[in-house]
Amino acid sequence: MNHPLLVELASLLPPANLVLNADRLAPRLLDARKRLRGQTLGMALPSSVEEAAMIITRCWAHGVSIVPQGGNTSLVGGATPMSETSLLLGCDRLKRIRQIDPCGYTLTAEAGCVLDDIRDAAQTEARLFPLWLGSSGSACLGGLIGTNAGGLQVQRYGNTRELVLGIEAVLPDGQIFRGLHPLRKRNAGYDLKQLFIGAEGTLGFVTAATLRLFPQERGQAVAMVALDHAEQVLALFDQTKAAVGEVLTAFEMMDSEAMILMARHFPTLQQPFAAPPPYSVLIALSGSESDGVLAERLMELLLASGGENAVLAQDGSQAKALWALREHIPAAQTRQGPSIKHDLALPISAIPAFIAEAASLLKQWLPQVRPVVFGHVGDGNLHYNLGLLPEAETGQIEAEANGLLFDLVAHYGGDISAEHGIGRLRIAAADAHHDPVERALMRQVKAMLDPTGLFNPGVLF
Amino acid sequence: MNHPLLVELASLLPPANLVLNADRLAPRLLDARKRLRGQTLGMALPSSVEEAAMIITRCWAHGVSIVPQGGNTSLVGGATPMSETSLLLGCDRLKRIRQIDPCGYTLTAEAGCVLDDIRDAAQTEARLFPLWLGSSGSACLGGLIGTNAGGLQVQRYGNTRELVLGIEAVLPDGQIFRGLHPLRKRNAGYDLKQLFIGAEGTLGFVTAATLRLFPQERGQAVAMVALDHAEQVLALFDQTKAAVGEVLTAFEMMDSEAMILMARHFPTLQQPFAAPPPYSVLIALSGSESDGVLAERLMELLLASGGENAVLAQDGSQAKALWALREHIPAAQTRQGPSIKHDLALPISAIPAFIAEAASLLKQWLPQVRPVVFGHVGDGNLHYNLGLLPEAETGQIEAEANGLLFDLVAHYGGDISAEHGIGRLRIAAADAHHDPVERALMRQVKAMLDPTGLFNPGVLF
Repeated sequence: MNHPLLVELASLLPPANLVLNADRLAPRLLDARKRLRGQTLGMALPSSVEEAAMIITRCWAHGVSIVPQGGNTSLVGGATPMSETSLLLGCDRLKRIRQIDPCGYTLTAEAGCVLDDIRDAAQTEARLFPLWLGSSGSACLGGLIGTNAGGLQVQRYGNTRELVLGIEAVLPDGQIFRGLHPLRKRNAGYDLKQLFIGAEGTLGFVTAATLRLFPQERGQAVAMVALDHAEQVLALFDQTKAAVGEVLTAFEMMDSEAMILMARHFPTLQQPFAAPPPYSVLIALSGSESDGVLAERLMELLLASGGENAVLAQDGSQAKALWALREHIPAAQTRQGPSIKHDLALPISAIPAFIAEAASLLKQWLPQVRPVVFGHVGDGNLHYNLGLLPEAETGQIEAEANGLLFDLVAHYGGDISAEHGIGRLRIAAADAHHDPVERALMRQVKAMLDPTGLFNPGVLF
Repeated sequence: MNHPLLVELASLLPPANLVLNADRLAPRLLDARKRLRGQTLGMALPSSVEEAAMIITRCWAHGVSIVPQGGNTSLVGGATPMSETSLLLGCDRLKRIRQIDPCGYTLTAEAGCVLDDIRDAAQTEARLFPLWLGSSGSACLGGLIGTNAGGLQVQRYGNTRELVLGIEAVLPDGQIFRGLHPLRKRNAGYDLKQLFIGAEGTLGFVTAATLRLFPQERGQAVAMVALDHAEQVLALFDQTKAAVGEVLTAFEMMDSEAMILMARHFPTLQQPFAAPPPYSVLIALSGSESDGVLAERLMELLLASGGENAVLAQDGSQAKALWALREHIPAAQTRQGPSIKHDLALPISAIPAFIAEAASLLKQWLPQVRPVVFGHVGDGNLHYNLGLLPEAETGQIEAEANGLLFDLVAHYGGDISAEHGIGRLRIAAADAHHDPVERALMRQVKAMLDPTGLFNPGVLF
């Protein structure tokens, strides 16, 4: 409390909006993967955009850096302050749903609204906010925007970027960018809001956003298909897109290692197949048609694609059970022990060759390592984890594993991050693998908006 | 040919890539609405990104400004060079479709590819590139990206921005930004390609893009519905979204003035209703279901919404005939005589109140003026034209009409441009109506990438 910024903020903010208590700060200083333990000067919790602007202006004046934090669910350390002279800027007190316009299919929410609450608010007006991910009970809108979150329904509805119409944010110099337009179309020069989406809190503090809503879904159908080869996964994707493209909500894949892990650590979950097949694909349809019509369309597709080895959910609870298999993989991985996680982007057509070559290279390099491959295959996004590692050596071999996989990803025209972002953990990889012109341009943007490097130092660059 | 830049370019470029002939330049100097007659030093037509970079580097060295031009279809003068010391930079020789990946649903095309050719190329691989607009036979990819073009299927597939995965561009300093990723998801820092989309050629020269493709549509259904009030249009939109949301491709509206104009100037087009109703709504469904299934769903919707006054196309040629009514409105407006055109963005829910209040204000102001209102109502985008104007006074009253309508649009939370952009014709309006922080930030971005103002001077700012 000796820092002059804290003295000043204490005099300017209501007591509840400034947190200095070490016990309350502790959980905010440990990242979601428990890899980083941070430090901070304290945490400010503005309850309005004006208050956020005031806090940021004072930080600017004192030269105190700022780490924005939403639900603290970053998987790449993007929200953890690593310096005792950084201020945590939380959005816990920015929790209002400011407006819902069911007719215009828009909702305006503040940055501290939890994803589930936004989905619920839309639901009460018979609307759908389609973003859906594992951490939807804790991830906040501010963080979802900062990381351009993806998740389980990108195939149909897109990433967060495609769901944001307008943004309100405080710039590093304390100016307020008032861009909360509810307009589906607005060609009015550079689309500046795009800079803040996926910026991981490095260009300012997002305080609210206007989001796109969709019609509530009337029906759904879910199936799990067993396949022997990754090429068959792609062939099925192709047939699925052609047959039911506009009602295809998710096309997810799990390899046998993922299914084995999940059965081991969640034995009560019902397995769809007698033995884990090399590849299990979850196909989810949803839309304005009834459960029955969608199930019929899915059944037709499975028959046409020779899917004798498929399980079609017969009702909502069976559909949930199939989804649960996919959703429990990350937790099963955690229970299994230490692992190295990757969030790879690939051209969809390159996925079979990538999987085969990666497995073979890894085997040569470290025979006992077990890749666990699953993810949003329909979006070209593989979560590629390496498990069964001797705990003591995890840190040591991570750099080698990353090098091997990132080189291979680059060879296939992919990228080192599909949805998790760069954060603190992927900076060296971004410098190594991304076009130097692109990296230099990003630094120019950063220098333009945040010339003194106030926001989230050590993240992205 | 005396200018040292031209001498230099003549020595560096193949003869076909430098156009100085006045007759060949003339059509490139007249804008699509025949409102601007420009001037230029000459026109360079690079045939590769490297050649474009070389030309731009030479312009930078000589301090010669550059006006990028695609198909010259801008409706706001965004592609017309207005100085005899500006170089036109065309994309006529950047015409290659570089790659189609049907499995990954992507296509990479150069900036000079005409929209129809891109659609055809996708079609040969049983894929759909869904961007579709009146000028699709002449608009080029470079210009579509520069204006973030919208058009007739935004309701379903989004604007150009939502269809672009990666971009290759030359920056004002001659550096090449190589961002042609075919990746559906890539969270790798700031999404810099967004800056070039909708930048109207002010930040560099786009040479190629990787585009999203969709499954080819198997069926379609089209209906025209007659309604008495704008509120009924919104109610029908609401019912349509709920009933057939994911197969709703277009929801277009025309008022009676639009239908009257069209019947007068295109008397051979078949009219669906005995007399033009106050509002005609065109609903188009398309998707993976057959014509028959979609027609049945549309029929059900029309019956449920009390649409006794509706015409449902019975086959493809009737569907085309209904679409032709919508598509011929701009041409009918042109044949009718001078008009003042607006491309307004509005929150969808504000449209009925806006239409009523605008009509009443305009009547008070200039009783003989006839508003012609039509457009993409499902996207909150009205084309609002004022016709029946005494020719001599058109220029004189335009400023007053713009002032009146733009103030009203702002009052309803809308914007002065939905899809046409700012160009040369909307700069004063943008300065008057947009947030000063936003405008200042745009100028900062411009100064960062183009500090000497080389690209498209007089456009956007």
